[in-house]
Amino acid sequence: MERVFRNGLWVGTGPDARSVQGDARVVDGVIVEIASEIDPGDAEVEELNGKWVFPGFSQSHVHLCQTLFRGLAEDLELLDWLGERIWPLEAAHDEDSTYWSARLGITELLLGGTTSILDMGSLRHTDATLTACEESGIRAACGRALMDRENSSGLSESMDANLLGACDEADRWHGRGRLRYAFAPRFVPSCSEELLRAVVQEARDRGCVIHTHASENEAEVELVRSLTGMDNVEYLHEIGMTGGDVCLAHCIHLTDAEERILAETGTHLLHCPSSNLKLGSGVARIPELLARGVRVSLGADGAPCNNGLDIFREMRLAGLIQKPRLGTSVLGPGAILEMATTGGAAATGLGSVSGSLEVGKAADFVVVDPNHPTICPQVDPVVAAVYSLSPAAIVSVWIEGGPVVRDGRVLAWDAEETARAARDAALRVRRTAGL
Amino acid sequence: MERVFRNGLWVGTGPDARSVQGDARVVDGVIVEIASEIDPGDAEVEELNGKWVFPGFSQSHVHLCQTLFRGLAEDLELLDWLGERIWPLEAAHDEDSTYWSARLGITELLLGGTTSILDMGSLRHTDATLTACEESGIRAACGRALMDRENSSGLSESMDANLLGACDEADRWHGRGRLRYAFAPRFVPSCSEELLRAVVQEARDRGCVIHTHASENEAEVELVRSLTGMDNVEYLHEIGMTGGDVCLAHCIHLTDAEERILAETGTHLLHCPSSNLKLGSGVARIPELLARGVRVSLGADGAPCNNGLDIFREMRLAGLIQKPRLGTSVLGPGAILEMATTGGAAATGLGSVSGSLEVGKAADFVVVDPNHPTICPQVDPVVAAVYSLSPAAIVSVWIEGGPVVRDGRVLAWDAEETARAARDAALRVRRTAGL
Repeated sequence: MERVFRNGLWVGTGPDARSVQGDARVVDGVIVEIASEIDPGDAEVEELNGKWVFPGFSQSHVHLCQTLFRGLAEDLELLDWLGERIWPLEAAHDEDSTYWSARLGITELLLGGTTSILDMGSLRHTDATLTACEESGIRAACGRALMDRENSSGLSESMDANLLGACDEADRWHGRGRLRYAFAPRFVPSCSEELLRAVVQEARDRGCVIHTHASENEAEVELVRSLTGMDNVEYLHEIGMTGGDVCLAHCIHLTDAEERILAETGTHLLHCPSSNLKLGSGVARIPELLARGVRVSLGADGAPCNNGLDIFREMRLAGLIQKPRLGTSVLGPGAILEMATTGGAAATGLGSVSGSLEVGKAADFVVVDPNHPTICPQVDPVVAAVYSLSPAAIVSVWIEGGPVVRDGRVLAWDAEETARAARDAALRVRRTAGL
Repeated sequence: MERVFRNGLWVGTGPDARSVQGDARVVDGVIVEIASEIDPGDAEVEELNGKWVFPGFSQSHVHLCQTLFRGLAEDLELLDWLGERIWPLEAAHDEDSTYWSARLGITELLLGGTTSILDMGSLRHTDATLTACEESGIRAACGRALMDRENSSGLSESMDANLLGACDEADRWHGRGRLRYAFAPRFVPSCSEELLRAVVQEARDRGCVIHTHASENEAEVELVRSLTGMDNVEYLHEIGMTGGDVCLAHCIHLTDAEERILAETGTHLLHCPSSNLKLGSGVARIPELLARGVRVSLGADGAPCNNGLDIFREMRLAGLIQKPRLGTSVLGPGAILEMATTGGAAATGLGSVSGSLEVGKAADFVVVDPNHPTICPQVDPVVAAVYSLSPAAIVSVWIEGGPVVRDGRVLAWDAEETARAARDAALRVRRTAGL
């Protein structure tokens, strides 16, 4: 299958990147040429009419299973948010409700130009999330939230059940089409050290990413200290859970030593600015961490702490919140766009596959109308992406050279059926949870 | 003209407000009845099919003349942003470019559900902005930016020229259709005391609102102190420029005495959270000010310090930025929705006319699809409005009972013509300004 996309502005990312006005040739889902003019020959032609083309956006921290809980856990801090709302709601999920939760979330993600995600599921029903991902065509690395310490919602299982379940899922899903498996211990307070150490082993045996939360909230940091006698990232480092295959969401409250660990080990920091403000967690020191060499990517986190899954809001907020702290010129739009594209792809284990518009990478991209009234008469597409763009300006979304969104509709499934079934499932879960 | 809108959820605002599921009857642009079921009789029927209806949103601080400068003044603090970019660009405006700037901005505002604005123009060409407002059907109070102190861009005129021009505009536009005139001295550093005192007189003689900036930036506050020997709001109070007809944008850096002046005089504070972060100005103490009784409303400010005109981004950010400062339960969504509706209408002098869905008020409202994937399966429309909603979920927008937006299009004019002309005008202005 060969397609030539004609007359777009192919937006470059990264410090040395240039944008190219012209055409791109895609063969079997891979970009083989970008040039000012390409003779399409017998290839199918897609006319872009001067529109802007961004790499597909990548979100390295989402929870698709929580989409149905949007608006059900307002104005709480992390530990209450989990204990009073999210864990009871997750415990009330069934296979069907988890599927519709994922499908609703993927709909929002694809309409908003996100083409790859690193997702953390709940303890159960992760197959339902992976099934919805597979049907949609999105690139996803997903894994069950591993939890073997007891909690008030009964959302835990034995260490063996956790591990066997995750390994079984990994063996069935990792590398299947556009899917990967990610081992996802929820966070230190939910996991025994035995489980965490076993996860490191099993994930590395299989070439899977490890995805967890760390140092999001001061009370959580205290709790980890009381459980382990160490600071959170220091502890994770001690048990082997740092490195280029480890993804730590949030990392707001770090010591100097922990910042150094992240930088030296190449551990990925998954920055979620909306969630960090919504849960009152704080503002991560992203410019300082980038200056130390920490690898940073972006995610919306779950719908109940955001309350959406829009990468543009995350980019914009990532920039805005640093300016009163450190001055207006800190953290330029280029660095933020990188977090949302190459940074996310690298965290998800897709660094060589996706995240930028380059020959040899997959044709995962987002076509945007530069004349949309929210960005017109914008001159710099990178500034526009970070501070002006919203899903409303997206014309189409492509993964591996095939369309997944056109004219504001996800092609994989029916929007009305998704909304109706998601609503019904949400009511059932709330009733079961007694919320 | 009589219309019955059937089967909507009419969202209440204010502390005692209830939402009503049902119908509304509108006669000659005014809501005369809201009830669970209304017999339409001979009235024209508009079927809402269970959609949500919000009051038209109100933004009490925008600069339509700056829409063409979107993306042209990145990563600067206020005084550099003005001196290096905004004033040279405003000085380069002509009548035609100002018209297209306003038309582009109004397009974005209406598509985003904003039905009334308090706008500050530039020193010149304010007729062009008012003409675009009139054509569009938006409710607007506009006025030229009065500036009689010299600056490096030559964007100033004599005190007499300022005052005669503004009074002439006021006499021609104030009360014409949905338009009002607002006297708009730019800020203390741009205006002589003689001009400011005359503005108070002329505005009050005509029943016009006074609209200015105050205490946005620490360097500005210092400059005002050096010019007047007083703190900014203290000075404005001294010369009579406080009260229920006075609207002060920003007010981030206030003394305790100034906070008390705002509360005691009923002066309106126009809060612009995106702009305040983008220019590195700081975070206004909105929860503390509300607790003292200060009247607060919201605005996007101009496109070059935002970089858009989306009320949903402002509501969301107004909530998010306070949580790490003061805790997650501070500043609930109801208070934020009030700022964006009744608060803005009151500041603009439209408190008895618009801003809420009540019998006797104008039928200014926004119809939203509750099944849109960005808000489904949301349960509380107030939470949805503040934290989830975006223009993408808007189905239609109505002012005085007539449609101004349907199916993502502004009805007053052609979108492609607007984008093309705005682009051409922006190029011309940039060239004239040498930027």
